[in-house]
Amino acid sequence: MSVETASRGDRSASIEVGFVGLGAMGSAMAANLLKAGHALAVHNRTPERTAPLVAQGARHAASPSDAAEGEIVITMLADDRALEDVVFGPKGLLEALPAGAIHVSMSTISMALAERLEAAHAAKGQGFISAPVFGRPEAAAQAKLFIVVAGDDGHVQRSLPVLEALGQRCFVIGREPYKANIVKLAGNFLITSVLEALGEAFALTAKAGIDRKEFLTLLTSTLFDAPVYKTYGGIIAEERYQPAGFKASLGHKDIRLVLAAAEALKVPMPLASLVATRFLSLLAQGGGDLDWAAIAKLAARDAGEGASLAPAR
Amino acid sequence: MSVETASRGDRSASIEVGFVGLGAMGSAMAANLLKAGHALAVHNRTPERTAPLVAQGARHAASPSDAAEGEIVITMLADDRALEDVVFGPKGLLEALPAGAIHVSMSTISMALAERLEAAHAAKGQGFISAPVFGRPEAAAQAKLFIVVAGDDGHVQRSLPVLEALGQRCFVIGREPYKANIVKLAGNFLITSVLEALGEAFALTAKAGIDRKEFLTLLTSTLFDAPVYKTYGGIIAEERYQPAGFKASLGHKDIRLVLAAAEALKVPMPLASLVATRFLSLLAQGGGDLDWAAIAKLAARDAGEGASLAPAR
Amino acid sequence: MSVETASRGDRSASIEVGFVGLGAMGSAMAANLLKAGHALAVHNRTPERTAPLVAQGARHAASPSDAAEGEIVITMLADDRALEDVVFGPKGLLEALPAGAIHVSMSTISMALAERLEAAHAAKGQGFISAPVFGRPEAAAQAKLFIVVAGDDGHVQRSLPVLEALGQRCFVIGREPYKANIVKLAGNFLITSVLEALGEAFALTAKAGIDRKEFLTLLTSTLFDAPVYKTYGGIIAEERYQPAGFKASLGHKDIRLVLAAAEALKVPMPLASLVATRFLSLLAQGGGDLDWAAIAKLAARDAGEGASLAPAR
Amino acid sequence: MSVETASRGDRSASIEVGFVGLGAMGSAMAANLLKAGHALAVHNRTPERTAPLVAQGARHAASPSDAAEGEIVITMLADDRALEDVVFGPKGLLEALPAGAIHVSMSTISMALAERLEAAHAAKGQGFISAPVFGRPEAAAQAKLFIVVAGDDGHVQRSLPVLEALGQRCFVIGREPYKANIVKLAGNFLITSVLEALGEAFALTAKAGIDRKEFLTLLTSTLFDAPVYKTYGGIIAEERYQPAGFKASLGHKDIRLVLAAAEALKVPMPLASLVATRFLSLLAQGGGDLDWAAIAKLAARDAGEGASLAPAR
Repeated sequence: MSVETASRGDRSASIEVGFVGLGAMGSAMAANLLKAGHALAVHNRTPERTAPLVAQGARHAASPSDAAEGEIVITMLADDRALEDVVFGPKGLLEALPAGAIHVSMSTISMALAERLEAAHAAKGQGFISAPVFGRPEAAAQAKLFIVVAGDDGHVQRSLPVLEALGQRCFVIGREPYKANIVKLAGNFLITSVLEALGEAFALTAKAGIDRKEFLTLLTSTLFDAPVYKTYGGIIAEERYQPAGFKASLGHKDIRLVLAAAEALKVPMPLASLVATRFLSLLAQGGGDLDWAAIAKLAARDAGEGASLAPAR
Repeated sequence: MSVETASRGDRSASIEVGFVGLGAMGSAMAANLLKAGHALAVHNRTPERTAPLVAQGARHAASPSDAAEGEIVITMLADDRALEDVVFGPKGLLEALPAGAIHVSMSTISMALAERLEAAHAAKGQGFISAPVFGRPEAAAQAKLFIVVAGDDGHVQRSLPVLEALGQRCFVIGREPYKANIVKLAGNFLITSVLEALGEAFALTAKAGIDRKEFLTLLTSTLFDAPVYKTYGGIIAEERYQPAGFKASLGHKDIRLVLAAAEALKVPMPLASLVATRFLSLLAQGGGDLDWAAIAKLAARDAGEGASLAPAR
Repeated sequence: MSVETASRGDRSASIEVGFVGLGAMGSAMAANLLKAGHALAVHNRTPERTAPLVAQGARHAASPSDAAEGEIVITMLADDRALEDVVFGPKGLLEALPAGAIHVSMSTISMALAERLEAAHAAKGQGFISAPVFGRPEAAAQAKLFIVVAGDDGHVQRSLPVLEALGQRCFVIGREPYKANIVKLAGNFLITSVLEALGEAFALTAKAGIDRKEFLTLLTSTLFDAPVYKTYGGIIAEERYQPAGFKASLGHKDIRLVLAAAEALKVPMPLASLVATRFLSLLAQGGGDLDWAAIAKLAARDAGEGASLAPAR
Repeated sequence: MSVETASRGDRSASIEVGFVGLGAMGSAMAANLLKAGHALAVHNRTPERTAPLVAQGARHAASPSDAAEGEIVITMLADDRALEDVVFGPKGLLEALPAGAIHVSMSTISMALAERLEAAHAAKGQGFISAPVFGRPEAAAQAKLFIVVAGDDGHVQRSLPVLEALGQRCFVIGREPYKANIVKLAGNFLITSVLEALGEAFALTAKAGIDRKEFLTLLTSTLFDAPVYKTYGGIIAEERYQPAGFKASLGHKDIRLVLAAAEALKVPMPLASLVATRFLSLLAQGGGDLDWAAIAKLAARDAGEGASLAPAR
């Protein structure tokens, strides 16, 4: 099995694809499937969100099962619960997906749900692969996502032509679907570790009188010349926590999934625990709608910025 | 003041420079000063280490004060104590450096010592700037260090022609020398945060059966496409902790300097504290001579790899 | 509402009580109900465990619903799942408990399950109170448990005569049942905090050459003259982790319930997170059957006791 | 060597004692030495503080060396620096203490200073023992301190008659003086662990709507029936952080000494690191003059009490 596949774009055969979940990410991804020439049925809980895609040639599906009539159905939903509803609920995917067809789960979900879905689909003779993505809505719109894929070889091979329309690169990392979810969660954990580290580093250097932007320029010109430091370092240096590119409340959900996987696999992760504590603190203080980089505010606040516990005099 | 200066290499005037501290870093740096045409006097506590540089044209200096007769003296030493000895000890720099000459401190030292040195040199009419570096010995040999510079404007301007022979770029970040030391410490803290984060991420993915190298390839092809992830991710993925590029015992020293600065500035840094605990644990278990990336072993060990606390049966 | 009630023991009226869950704790508690003169029906998943109580006059109940015919049914089970099965499963309490009768839940369960049970029973016209206990099996046998009670006033008053046969003191702390569960979890968290603190303190003093028992005597003769320090300090000082009074795997379960409640209430608890990490580490290393005080071994091991990461020579 | 000695009070022989350091603790202790019939010379940096003791029969000593003419000199000072000045400074103890006389150090100082003092005094033929205390000023006034003693057997035996006038019990725990300092630091660490644990437990239960005082009553009636939980639990439950019984800034100093000892002995202490972070945060936010129990405020604040990071609308 090759570890990765470059996006080829030369696979011309149109495939009948269903797409469930038209948030900012899902809508952009579905549009790229249309552009790539696939026949698309789209469903969303709030049905109005299908309109722009229908205007581009997609078919409106009234329910998840209505979207599950083709060869492949993709789900891109907010969390475990939403995906459970779509799969196991009334008019759900499980009852409608034809035997031999494949459910491609691209949401960030728990390891436990991935394992449950694989078993449930297999019992119906249906395929299931996990294919979560790295990238924000802008990257989705430009088909520049990075896609982590895991599942049965045959299912993966059949899904790749569709996935390649969505991202710049697919990484196939194992036969058990949950492995792709673990990699996605590990990646998100690494991002949060950068947020916490930058928060503390900025708190220190700012209190020493060092200009935030000069410090960031130095970092990202040297050892930390990576997208994650540039993007989040910029947000933190400028305190641009609104509008949120990715909300703290969602970051909190993800770090909880990380810790749930760590529990299941018995892997103590003290840094992940620290970050989870930060997110909970941010939410407790009303910051759930800020960009998740705002956990960096907590390090600054602990250092005294804008905070006082001094006795009133 | 410009934030940075590109290395120009076109400053032809030879400057009389002293260099104290000929470890792996210092020897490589001193050689580059010779290549750049500067007149160089070199001193090392173990005197034999001056020989290769003398063969290249340097003058052997029998003591720090003997190396301090020129316009600039550079120190590149292991820790605060070594630098204190060189400056304040018998035949030290402080008593020999001519008024108007400049001590350029390139070691990774504490904020407190930088402040003390600035004051002591000023009292003698001598200049003092901090110019710590990012880079391993290979980078030093190739004159590819990144140099963080802080100090009085005039002193910095006079030192830059010399510094530019040592690195690919100088970042001037303030007039108070200690600021450069804080930036260096903050940078080292960020590196250690990457070590801990990678250690936990690898412990999680490895226990999920995901290949370490495939996971690393994925990371460094995407959001984490930066030298720090490539270098240290590779060491951790392959468990190449010997020979050490930078010893854990030195990493421990550096993270202690970070926490000392955080104390002085009253900046709580829970992630820095976590990393410090890891280094102490590594040292307590006999790993002080391993590469500092070996703190990643602790996350794996906590997850059960090669460890058992089970009751004997 | 009185905060507490002394155990009176003078309530002579026999009450018809069901008891589900005859582990070490439950068996001892049920025996005390018989001694106090109550009519008792007992059920356990493994039915043989009812025999000793039947010999003392109890009626064997073949199912949870068979035990739920009286005025009060008490449950004392291992975890949320076991209680869910007993209440919501086939032949469960929910379908059998008469309207007006009361389910007294004495297990250490999640805040979420307590809320769900309260609602489910209320919908059937049944009462529900939480009454978790502090104390090990020895204390249960001697009717010396401390019982934390919360629920509707009328339900609590009707249950107290039964509860008073089980413990030395009942603390009534609110009308919402889940509050008793939170108090129980907070108490268990405090115990684990003592385990971690003693583990670190012993690691420090032992490495300084200070005798463990002398140190413990000093502590428990002075500021730390409390049962929790004596009991656990003794176990740790003598490394008596087997047989387990309370297994690490159960301690792990409890600290997870603490963190789940903290998540639900949005209360960051870094010390609880640290302790959870310790338990996970102990389990990952095969120590799940040791006494939960064995997390103290981890601090000693981190300090180098019996551990080596040194390179082989 | 007996581990402990009850305070006998029947040793009638008057000993010539010097006492340096007349803060709240020292003044109370010195007064008890007078009551016990010892001949006392008292010194304090701010000389007026000797007046009340002189009124009770003590001799005013103009310098440390002036107080060091007897058989024993006791020091009770704020920190390492103050004790270093008193011993090594001009007119310090070291130059004045007669050969064979004993310096009894009762301050909370670092392990490193204890080792340095032992060596310095030994080089002069003088004795040195460490005898730090547990107890607040009220306990000192009532001669109810607990005293931890370590040092050469003969020196300890000669000092005990004096120490027994100061406390309710002396614990002799080793021949190396620094051991007593380690025990004192470990004890203070344990107190701070209780502060953090109570802070988190109260934050959780308070947010669940549980009355703080009822919760505390329950704890201190059961497993946590110890002075440390009663004293500090009461302060936290009532938020009585002023006036400070022991200031947070001093608590911060002590936890730093704990971590310094842990560094020296290579003992990772993550809970001690967590507490140190809390103290630093409290100080950064202006709370250095509050009682050290005020670190509990931070857990409540992190949980949202009185804090908001929500975006302004």
